[in-house]
Amino acid sequence: MTTRPWNFSAGPSVLPEEVLQQAASEMLDWQGSGMGVMEMSHRGEHFLRIAHQAEADLREVLAIPATHKVLFMQGGAIAQNAILPMNLSKGGKTDYVITGSWSIKSAKEAGKYCAVHVAASNEANRHTALPHPASWALSHDAAYVHVCSNETIDGLEMHELPDLVSLGSQAPLVIDCSSHIASRAIDWHRVAVAYAGAQKNLGPSGLTLAVVREDLLGHALPCTPSAFDYATVSKNESMYNTPPTYAIYMAGLVLQWIKRQTEGTLSGLAAIEARNKLKAERLYGCIDGSDFYSNPIEHAARSRMNVPFFLHNDALNASFLEAAKAHGMLQLKGHKSVGGMRASIYNAMPVAGVDALVDFLNDFARKHG
Amino acid sequence: MTTRPWNFSAGPSVLPEEVLQQAASEMLDWQGSGMGVMEMSHRGEHFLRIAHQAEADLREVLAIPATHKVLFMQGGAIAQNAILPMNLSKGGKTDYVITGSWSIKSAKEAGKYCAVHVAASNEANRHTALPHPASWALSHDAAYVHVCSNETIDGLEMHELPDLVSLGSQAPLVIDCSSHIASRAIDWHRVAVAYAGAQKNLGPSGLTLAVVREDLLGHALPCTPSAFDYATVSKNESMYNTPPTYAIYMAGLVLQWIKRQTEGTLSGLAAIEARNKLKAERLYGCIDGSDFYSNPIEHAARSRMNVPFFLHNDALNASFLEAAKAHGMLQLKGHKSVGGMRASIYNAMPVAGVDALVDFLNDFARKHG
Repeated sequence: MTTRPWNFSAGPSVLPEEVLQQAASEMLDWQGSGMGVMEMSHRGEHFLRIAHQAEADLREVLAIPATHKVLFMQGGAIAQNAILPMNLSKGGKTDYVITGSWSIKSAKEAGKYCAVHVAASNEANRHTALPHPASWALSHDAAYVHVCSNETIDGLEMHELPDLVSLGSQAPLVIDCSSHIASRAIDWHRVAVAYAGAQKNLGPSGLTLAVVREDLLGHALPCTPSAFDYATVSKNESMYNTPPTYAIYMAGLVLQWIKRQTEGTLSGLAAIEARNKLKAERLYGCIDGSDFYSNPIEHAARSRMNVPFFLHNDALNASFLEAAKAHGMLQLKGHKSVGGMRASIYNAMPVAGVDALVDFLNDFARKHG
Repeated sequence: MTTRPWNFSAGPSVLPEEVLQQAASEMLDWQGSGMGVMEMSHRGEHFLRIAHQAEADLREVLAIPATHKVLFMQGGAIAQNAILPMNLSKGGKTDYVITGSWSIKSAKEAGKYCAVHVAASNEANRHTALPHPASWALSHDAAYVHVCSNETIDGLEMHELPDLVSLGSQAPLVIDCSSHIASRAIDWHRVAVAYAGAQKNLGPSGLTLAVVREDLLGHALPCTPSAFDYATVSKNESMYNTPPTYAIYMAGLVLQWIKRQTEGTLSGLAAIEARNKLKAERLYGCIDGSDFYSNPIEHAARSRMNVPFFLHNDALNASFLEAAKAHGMLQLKGHKSVGGMRASIYNAMPVAGVDALVDFLNDFARKHG
């Protein structure tokens, strides 16, 4: 059993202990190869096995169809903010849906490469609710429609991805799913491109996942660096440049861990999703049931992964964080642009960690309310 | 003492055992923080300490002057092939010196962003000698002059960097030093920009180092992704996007290891450099002293890091590799574009590993010569 503190970091973030233990035990010798994973040529038989297994497990866990290519890239979602329009916009028009800090950043960067049309925005309600897809003003000629399906900083999540066809758009849907990838199923019928930094639910930072429908490859702008041309990356099976080998290995271990999970009769991603629902219900339940804490997000749009919350008395923030640390609860300070607190409760945060946080919240409120 | 095989991979490549041991021991809890390094927010106090120490140690080991900024980036040298001209060319003219596979690749990619003038090339001698700087046809108006100071595939190394001023050029010198960084001192009076993938002498893949003279920042082409704009990366202390935190930590451990090294009265990088000289002398000495093996590179241009060699009888290649493996010598197969064999003897390869290889080479030659 763990004696480690509970780590609520928004990312890089907590990893399953058994994954870390396995990584530590294989550090000097991966499965009798005589080499640690970091020391292997990316083109050698051992690492190729690791990379192929990681892709196969990702495809299995997320049920990625054969129509979509899996690319292991670098630079994080912030680099993808440029790499995506470089690859898909053809310099034309794109639709962006603004729902919080990350989608604002994405739209701004895309403006370097194409005409960005803001199809919807929740700035009027200060990013506390999601604009309903029926209200989106989609272009008839967009190269793609971009959404951030989980806003890490603001704490909003799209619990159903939009069906663009039913909204009259033929454009491919692109989702930045960095902070909730592998926390729930993805409806690939609706998604043409999904990209995500790995450092929330999949492993260490430095690995970016891009899942791209194959028919969209091959239209990169001339200014696209070869290392970031989806078609080049795909053709070279993510080895055009040396991939972040250790991060891929770690993601592979995390995916194997996901596959091993059970929750009642559920297993794998379904078990993970059920557990994430439960964790979110307990934490939001505690916040809503108190007059000491609050969360401003409309219930239907609340993120299961990132739970920002506020103490009604701001003056208690510092002593809250201090007491939390003393009780073994780390990294609860909210993002500087939002303030207050934030608990990120990714896959690797056990139910027991959320229960401990709930106990602490109630306790602190009793003492200071 | 090691019982691991000797790993001659060209990269990712062997790491010092004590570095791997420390990483394994800290995997679940870095110095009492209650978190593994992979689990830390990149903006938290613990990781900031790790990153600052890594930069300080890099500056100390390589004697990087205050005029130069240290950037921790992603994408490897192949991404830098585009990122460099995006940042420095201003879309004008650049000079490239062709000395082997990597400089060819760099020049080709740069052609997307600027006019590339080939100032010198050793294609006529099939990349077996270095064109003397006095013979370089440098432009009077180049935005920079690019060289690859160690050609990993061909096995050439510039043992003295060119003094562009004495050659009549005012252009900044850019070196791709991926495969010999931290193996020897760098003369920063001559170098404006140095870039390197970390996966040879500094740690795992997924981390790219760019050392950029400060006055060159701020001229990126409009198409440059923000995450790869040197000025943006510098202004944000390499945290504009989430950095590859674990790779930075590992590079930090490797740098600490370099600082601990001694060789006679020498210490740190000087000890490493002396040891690298010795290793290279022994291996080339064995090859030159035999009529069974050969290395085609002119003596003055031979790389201390990457030693390609050929068996006079190609038909023995497969049994050579098999016997090598049986004797605990891994990853000796040459790059597919060159053929034959290649022993990469980076910093973390002990003298004992080279001695073992020399013994094996002599032994195999005796048996099959």
